[in-house]
Amino acid sequence: MASKPSIPKGTRDFSPAEVSKRNYIISIMRHHFEKFGYQPIETPSFENSDTLMGKYGEEGDRLIFKILNSGDYLNDVRGKIMHTGKVIIHFFEILRGLKFIIKMNVTNYDDTSRELIMTFKEFNDFEKEILLKYLIEKKHEIINFYSNLDSDDEGFGLDEMNFNREIFAPFYQIYIDNLEVLNSNKTTKLISEKALRYDLTVPFARYVVQHQSEIEFPFKRYQIQPVWRADRPQKGRFREFYQCDADVVGSKSLWQEVELVQLYDSVFAELGLNGVTIKINNRKVLSGIAEVIGASDKLIDFTVALDKLDKIGEDGVKKEMIEKGISETALEKVQPLFNFTGTIQEKLAKLSTLLDSSEDGKKGIEELQFICENVAKLGLKQAVLDLDVTLARGLNYYTGAIFEVSAPKEVAMGSIGGGGRYDDLTGIFGLKDMSGVGISFGLDRIYLVLEELNLFPETVTTATKVMFLNFGESQTFEAMQAITTLRNKNIKSEMYPDAAKIDKQFKHAERRGIPFVVKEISGSSFTLKDIQTGEQVQLDLEALIEKLS
Amino acid sequence: MASKPSIPKGTRDFSPAEVSKRNYIISIMRHHFEKFGYQPIETPSFENSDTLMGKYGEEGDRLIFKILNSGDYLNDVRGKIMHTGKVIIHFFEILRGLKFIIKMNVTNYDDTSRELIMTFKEFNDFEKEILLKYLIEKKHEIINFYSNLDSDDEGFGLDEMNFNREIFAPFYQIYIDNLEVLNSNKTTKLISEKALRYDLTVPFARYVVQHQSEIEFPFKRYQIQPVWRADRPQKGRFREFYQCDADVVGSKSLWQEVELVQLYDSVFAELGLNGVTIKINNRKVLSGIAEVIGASDKLIDFTVALDKLDKIGEDGVKKEMIEKGISETALEKVQPLFNFTGTIQEKLAKLSTLLDSSEDGKKGIEELQFICENVAKLGLKQAVLDLDVTLARGLNYYTGAIFEVSAPKEVAMGSIGGGGRYDDLTGIFGLKDMSGVGISFGLDRIYLVLEELNLFPETVTTATKVMFLNFGESQTFEAMQAITTLRNKNIKSEMYPDAAKIDKQFKHAERRGIPFVVKEISGSSFTLKDIQTGEQVQLDLEALIEKLS
Repeated sequence: MASKPSIPKGTRDFSPAEVSKRNYIISIMRHHFEKFGYQPIETPSFENSDTLMGKYGEEGDRLIFKILNSGDYLNDVRGKIMHTGKVIIHFFEILRGLKFIIKMNVTNYDDTSRELIMTFKEFNDFEKEILLKYLIEKKHEIINFYSNLDSDDEGFGLDEMNFNREIFAPFYQIYIDNLEVLNSNKTTKLISEKALRYDLTVPFARYVVQHQSEIEFPFKRYQIQPVWRADRPQKGRFREFYQCDADVVGSKSLWQEVELVQLYDSVFAELGLNGVTIKINNRKVLSGIAEVIGASDKLIDFTVALDKLDKIGEDGVKKEMIEKGISETALEKVQPLFNFTGTIQEKLAKLSTLLDSSEDGKKGIEELQFICENVAKLGLKQAVLDLDVTLARGLNYYTGAIFEVSAPKEVAMGSIGGGGRYDDLTGIFGLKDMSGVGISFGLDRIYLVLEELNLFPETVTTATKVMFLNFGESQTFEAMQAITTLRNKNIKSEMYPDAAKIDKQFKHAERRGIPFVVKEISGSSFTLKDIQTGEQVQLDLEALIEKLS
Repeated sequence: MASKPSIPKGTRDFSPAEVSKRNYIISIMRHHFEKFGYQPIETPSFENSDTLMGKYGEEGDRLIFKILNSGDYLNDVRGKIMHTGKVIIHFFEILRGLKFIIKMNVTNYDDTSRELIMTFKEFNDFEKEILLKYLIEKKHEIINFYSNLDSDDEGFGLDEMNFNREIFAPFYQIYIDNLEVLNSNKTTKLISEKALRYDLTVPFARYVVQHQSEIEFPFKRYQIQPVWRADRPQKGRFREFYQCDADVVGSKSLWQEVELVQLYDSVFAELGLNGVTIKINNRKVLSGIAEVIGASDKLIDFTVALDKLDKIGEDGVKKEMIEKGISETALEKVQPLFNFTGTIQEKLAKLSTLLDSSEDGKKGIEELQFICENVAKLGLKQAVLDLDVTLARGLNYYTGAIFEVSAPKEVAMGSIGGGGRYDDLTGIFGLKDMSGVGISFGLDRIYLVLEELNLFPETVTTATKVMFLNFGESQTFEAMQAITTLRNKNIKSEMYPDAAKIDKQFKHAERRGIPFVVKEISGSSFTLKDIQTGEQVQLDLEALIEKLS
């Protein structure tokens, strides 16, 4: 292999520093998930295709990574293709037979056609049926065509194909059908029965249904594992990335929503991330708004436009809404949403008036009221909870609360988490009436935010604390002896393995961010050098341990 | 979906208890890896197929999970098939053209054939060349065949195919070639360019070469990630499992081997696993033995047979060796290996005599001497190091030390780890002269051993410490308030989310292994019940915190 090896587009190698920082975030999440009573599960990287396909819409299905069956996975496909080739050859043979039948003035055309077709074992029953039906239906045209051929005429094979498309049609159709199969889901099923998971929610639903008899409901689980999407790779979008989800299934209690807001706050507070906004909305409030504007199919257009209020102003938003087909009357009705500021309580009051006629809307407001009031009474550490009626994520599946978390304003990062309630989480796998609610943390974005705000503690590093120089075999044993003791005291330590030039060894320590070097061992005395300050001290082993602990 | 969902054969779901135990083992490994100066990296789950294929032998290649290209992955294959179909149709057209050429007595047969072939744009250049070459080579037979046809004869198309296989041959070959491609690696390349990693060593070698300019050598890395193998699933063998590897690349120092023995010992000691045996051997010693028995191709047969000494005795072993084609003279020479007991030093002395004539053998003994002596002088916590000349794992790639770890004898588990040195780790990716040495821990087996010996500490569980009963909305806020405080003190706590029957709530706590339940809140007093003992106490919040911390 001459060229330097590389990794697939949209995937990443993580260096030691990156792994350490990612693990730092993950361990904080784990800690808080567990403190809140969520317990870890893990599911296989690949699921049966049946489990995943059809759960994420057409676009989602397309983005699922499919795994080739092992063994001779093309066996069935190759069979199809061989068949196609033979169909073409048989086509000529049948035409030749037909011509013979007609030229010989065979009287029982139908029976002879049937016999003819049946001799071609390559055709399957369905194909034989089509062909025979066709030969009998078109009996008169076919007889006419061949009867009118001059006996000298080369009216055979290609002539029909080229000049008589009509007679050719059914054969051609079988040929095309056989090829078609190669562009359909059927082929994918033939050669692939497993696929990499696309998210953690569908595998979780599958897990719950599969293990329902072992699970104590309500079941609070968290899951931190990679997922894969065949998205077009672009900046900040990867084909392999971690999802970090906490969900509870089997309880409709709104305390879960309260708790999930606290959980977000708790994790971000420990990460030192101040200024996070947890935005909340409710699917039923959105339904209410849709009722009021009189067009539930315009709901997304409405919320997208409304979300631009800050940027393009009320007139701009209204113009866009009207362009999208929302009536002026509707806009008048929802006028309060164009001045939707104030505290959550004030916003809820405005919504109450606005959605007074909608049962759904009122239920949504009631839910929001419970969640926001209790969150406020219990208090948050650092995050701010805000009601945002433009929040419409997961509109297709969420049925109650909808969450989204914004990074602090000083970082241009958008959402670093999201979630919501879906009343029928496990219905797709046959377990009815299981309400679920959960949230997700965006590991990659949180990483970038912490990096940008310089919030990773220095202690995050996995770097070695002290490196012993190597002066050749004479002193290496003493060094390894000391190192063994240091390691027993949990001090990350190592010896430069080869007796390289001292300069090179120092550079190695420096480049790796190792803060201390033991320069010399003389009897029971160790010369320790602080790489950054250049300071040197002579210590015995006990003092060395104390210094480095 | 009517039937209960399931997961692919050979994969596993992990329950909360299992995840906690696995993470316990992994965190101990991480801790010790880092203490020894190994730093974590992570690589993508899938690599370019080029990176993996051809690195694990034919059997390995077959067991690699391949990922279907996204998008219209069958496009190229379909192209091939369409082409095949057209080749067959063209075949008839060419024959018809040929017949015409010959019947018209065209004088410049060669040029006309060329023109004829060139009109069929479907054929690729290679195919055109073959066809033309054939038409010109067989010129006389072809002219003869067609000239002798009666003008009334239907010597067209199928006749040739059916009655003149010779003329048909080259066309048929092209048809077959086009189909053939579907059973070869070419097709796999057309529809799959990525594959799930099969181990961590090849991705590590790829990582080192790709990032060589950023890496400070010698590079000590560890990696704990899943790998995938399309093995036939069977008890204890999975299609997705974790590997836990520590390797160092870029140093030939034998101190690395010393350290890796210490690392094994360190991890197993902290896991409380006593009675582990770390077996060591050296590839060069095996080469020496091969020299002495005069048959390097019989080395595996020799070691496999020798390994049965305990079971079938000296006579049995010798019988098997002779059956495998090892000479009696050879057996006489290696007689000391049949009584290969004693301390490592005694074993090394025996080997010295035995391999006195082998340069390789003597080098191997010298290496073993250094490693074993220094390990002994530095001391191990609990493991026993032993020299085992029957140890021949990784014979194809290891060049120096070979390691294997046996579980304590009271558990029937075989190897729980292994490793060795490979002098040319990164050569496959073009970076020469990089020696690597590393070890691997078998997570699944270590798990089973700890389980069997009951060595998982009780504190491993992620279970909640205290659950507050739910008596309906009246007391829930007080409960959540107390829970919020407890969580801030890092006490895993939760409230039963719904006001279910008290009995049901108690059962829930019991089944989940939650040790304490708060039964009642009255003013500032909490009634705490110990589920196991049934004991109840009344505590204020402060006392509650103290009790549960």
